[in-house]
Amino acid sequence: MTRDSYAAAGVDIAAGNEAVARYKDVMHGWRHADQIEEIGGFGGLFRLPGDQKRALAASTDGVGTKILIAAELGRYDTVGADLVNHCVNDILVVNASPLFFLDYLAVGKLEPEVAGEIVRGCFEACRKHNCALLGGETAEMPGLYAENHFDLAGTIVGLVDLDEVPRREDVQPGDAIIGLPSRGLHTNGYTLARKLLDTKVFGDALLAEHPSYYADVRAIQAVAKVHAMAHITGGGLLENLPRTLPENVKAVCEQSRWDVLEIFQELVRRGELDIHERYRTFNMGVGYTLVVPLADAGKAVAAVPGAKVIGWIEARGGDEPRVVIHPARA
Amino acid sequence: MTRDSYAAAGVDIAAGNEAVARYKDVMHGWRHADQIEEIGGFGGLFRLPGDQKRALAASTDGVGTKILIAAELGRYDTVGADLVNHCVNDILVVNASPLFFLDYLAVGKLEPEVAGEIVRGCFEACRKHNCALLGGETAEMPGLYAENHFDLAGTIVGLVDLDEVPRREDVQPGDAIIGLPSRGLHTNGYTLARKLLDTKVFGDALLAEHPSYYADVRAIQAVAKVHAMAHITGGGLLENLPRTLPENVKAVCEQSRWDVLEIFQELVRRGELDIHERYRTFNMGVGYTLVVPLADAGKAVAAVPGAKVIGWIEARGGDEPRVVIHPARA
Repeated sequence: MTRDSYAAAGVDIAAGNEAVARYKDVMHGWRHADQIEEIGGFGGLFRLPGDQKRALAASTDGVGTKILIAAELGRYDTVGADLVNHCVNDILVVNASPLFFLDYLAVGKLEPEVAGEIVRGCFEACRKHNCALLGGETAEMPGLYAENHFDLAGTIVGLVDLDEVPRREDVQPGDAIIGLPSRGLHTNGYTLARKLLDTKVFGDALLAEHPSYYADVRAIQAVAKVHAMAHITGGGLLENLPRTLPENVKAVCEQSRWDVLEIFQELVRRGELDIHERYRTFNMGVGYTLVVPLADAGKAVAAVPGAKVIGWIEARGGDEPRVVIHPARA
Repeated sequence: MTRDSYAAAGVDIAAGNEAVARYKDVMHGWRHADQIEEIGGFGGLFRLPGDQKRALAASTDGVGTKILIAAELGRYDTVGADLVNHCVNDILVVNASPLFFLDYLAVGKLEPEVAGEIVRGCFEACRKHNCALLGGETAEMPGLYAENHFDLAGTIVGLVDLDEVPRREDVQPGDAIIGLPSRGLHTNGYTLARKLLDTKVFGDALLAEHPSYYADVRAIQAVAKVHAMAHITGGGLLENLPRTLPENVKAVCEQSRWDVLEIFQELVRRGELDIHERYRTFNMGVGYTLVVPLADAGKAVAAVPGAKVIGWIEARGGDEPRVVIHPARA
């Protein structure tokens, strides 16, 4: 398969980037006075009313076509946690702690029992983060969704001290990149995975929960200074790592330093995915990254089981790629 | 057509109510300490961090199957405002003013130009409310959505002084119910409307914008005390009016007091909809209601063009309906 196998599977990353460019164009010319220039775009920041030192961080996300697998297998107890944890991780990148969450559930035919199970998953994951499930919307839309199909999205709002938001300029050549292990595809790459794998055979692996990295990140921050973080979602290491790095550095990762889960190896084999394609479609075993000073790297990895130094920050010339991944030797 | 024609069109309101009952069951047993008991469930309230006197109000909603009409007609410039205005109205019921909004756009095939137009609609409507468009998610999900189909949902967060949240117990028999005129179906009843009307013939009327009632409500509040408000969305006057009323009163409306738009008359004729069905599926010409003391009613309707006294609050016996609508004589 060639570089554009994800596009062939129906997801056009280039179109996604073009849409983002159009959004920027649309929003050019006006900005709310309390909206704070964000870094990386994982979560938007808005000054907390009446408090100059803190901000609300908010993010909206969906579960993606992982829900088609849940629908096919009739397993509705996992997607809620997938969604909440995804959102928690997104605002964690700007160091925010969750306050509340709202879900959006759209279905072709409303089965109250199924809807209840999905919302239970959201609620339990919220509760683990002391995050209120403040509201939600359930919409029955025959004609848009097939009878047994549904879509699930959600919005999280959290709180952060502005002087604790990571600053891009703190990242320096020589810093270590810590990777936290993923449990599977999380919520990305499913359109391609569904083309390559039999959902019924690989169901358990494909539905493995998108974990929250909240406790892990707080444990590392207790022992290490953290210069930048990234949640490795759609776009993989190649597109997510640079989002919170300055232009004058590159991230150099060595695949031999961490474990690539069996399911990714299977996807790479079946799809004959080249290195570029693997790392911009799947997380390939790394779900979240933290950039820390070299001196803190040992303490950081010791604080969280499975955490590993996966690479380094190096100086970058103007035309060099912002992420380089050295494949493991065969 | 009988009472369950909306169910026959594919939307099951009873299933919706059962799902809500299950959600309550799911969430029983834990509640975040800063989550404030809401009234009516239009928008959830969460205590503003560090401020005991104010709260954040949040609501998630979608455009519903109105988007199928937009997709069919290839008109993408209206749904964004529909969504934002719907959300603005939802938190306006608890008297909140918008702070920020996030959108969720899911598509079968991502057309950047179309996505840009949809987000432009969101942005312009946000800007009119001095509301930040703080973020959003665009998801391409072939297999879940047909190529030219999309879904659009959003979440708004606003701010309210807690002593300005309307209190159910202020509503008294003898209060007047003020209705603000709707412009069409807004974002509800489209699954049935699509069965009854030819989308191409009635396209303009069906896509009429869901207006924001923000300025109207603020104008009325400047001259009248407001005891309760309701946004007339899915469920119509019959299900939305009671949401912010105490149990010991009923709302008695007289249809002759306001104009029922031509499109509703057409829907009623074609669907042979009985009065119950009309008023729990469509807004029937009333988009938003305010309950005010009788003494303030004249000032209130004078403050907003098209505002009318549509009915009264009366004492209610335990087994009486909570809303009574007297049809206009033929």
